[in-house]
This record gives sequence, structure tokens and C-alpha cells, in this order.
Amino acid sequence: MSKHDPDLSRLFHALADPTRRAILTRLAREPAPVTELAAPTGLRLPTVMRHLSVLEEAGLISTAKAGRTRVCALVPEALAPARSWMDEQRAIWEARLDRLDAFVTSMMKETEK
Amino acid sequence: MSKHDPDLSRLFHALADPTRRAILTRLAREPAPVTELAAPTGLRLPTVMRHLSVLEEAGLISTAKAGRTRVCALVPEALAPARSWMDEQRAIWEARLDRLDAFVTSMMKETEK
Repeated sequence: MSKHDPDLSRLFHALADPTRRAILTRLAREPAPVTELAAPTGLRLPTVMRHLSVLEEAGLISTAKAGRTRVCALVPEALAPARSWMDEQRAIWEARLDRLDAFVTSMMKETEK
Repeated sequence: MSKHDPDLSRLFHALADPTRRAILTRLAREPAPVTELAAPTGLRLPTVMRHLSVLEEAGLISTAKAGRTRVCALVPEALAPARSWMDEQRAIWEARLDRLDAFVTSMMKETEK
């Protein structure tokens, strides 16, 4: 995962809004039409549509027309790159702690001599 | 973790930029002075300072003055709420799959009768 990955920026940007996170949580339960997603937000439909576009561009949801209704569904695997990036950071950090640990141990052995 | 958590929005917003992610990756290895963080970005110092402010406001880094130098350090536990939020989404999704599974199994038993 490159640090300059534009998809990763798009993904984190999509998650950086409470309305968009609430929509994702709702869709994790089951797919839903746009009007049903809009209702609990208290926002106007065009605003909700803009949020849905951001989520769709980030690959987090897919939308499909069913007659006159647009139905949204979660794409759960889309969160994987964000999760991987965080795991990488943790791995770098833990490697650092291991090095510190090894350093302290060798210093202690040195003083015991 | 509330879906309206402003800290979570700030956290994801901080992660939604490649320069800021590169700085975090660098700091996961060890603390570093601002000038050293700025060098590989190719950005002007005031721009880098703005990125550092966003990271600090999100709680992802801490900064301390050492003489005339400002040194930045990662706050690794600050990523935990973002990780928890993703884990929650996965749990909701998996509960849904379990319900679907139970439904299909009960339907199959119904047809066998």
C-alpha cells in the first residue's frame, strides 16, 4: 500500500463525516433505498445524494436502480485498505518497540559485565 | 463509539491526506524534528506546519520544544477509535451474514418437510 495511494485518501475522506458513517452503519445491516437512508439524517435529498456520491466514489457503496427507486448496498471489502494501512503503522511501531527492547537488554548486559 | 463522534471525524480527516500519512509512517519509526519531517515532502515549511497541526488536533502526534527545535512524536494509541469503528462495521456485517445463513437453513428445512 503506497503512502501516496489516492484511493486511500478518498476512503479516509469518505469516513471523515458523521452522516456518511451513519449511512454505512445503516447499510451494514441491509441494503436500502436512497429515500430511506435520507429520512433519519434530517438533510435535504440533494445533500444526501452528495454524501452517497462520495461513498460510491470511495468504493464503499454500490447503487442500482430498481424501477424508480435507487437502492444502495455496502461494499464491505472496501474498508480493507484502510484497515491494512493501520495494521502497517502498528507493525512499524511494534518493530520500533522491539528494537528499543533489544537495545535496553544489551545495555543492561553491558552494565553487568 | 457514537456515529456523531467529532473526534472520529477529525481522525479520519487527518488520515485522508498522503503527506500526513507519510509523516505518521515516518514518526512510527522514531520521533523527529519538524525540519526533518519537512525535507522529504518537498513542501514549504508553513504548509508542513499546517499538516502537523491537523495531526496534533486529531491527537495523532504530540510536539515538544527542545531548545530551538520542535520535535514531533507519534501517539500510536490515537488510531484505536478508527480501528474500533471499522471493527464495529465488520461485526454488524457479519451478524447480517449469520442471520441470512440462519434464514437459508430454515428455508431448506421447510422445503424438506
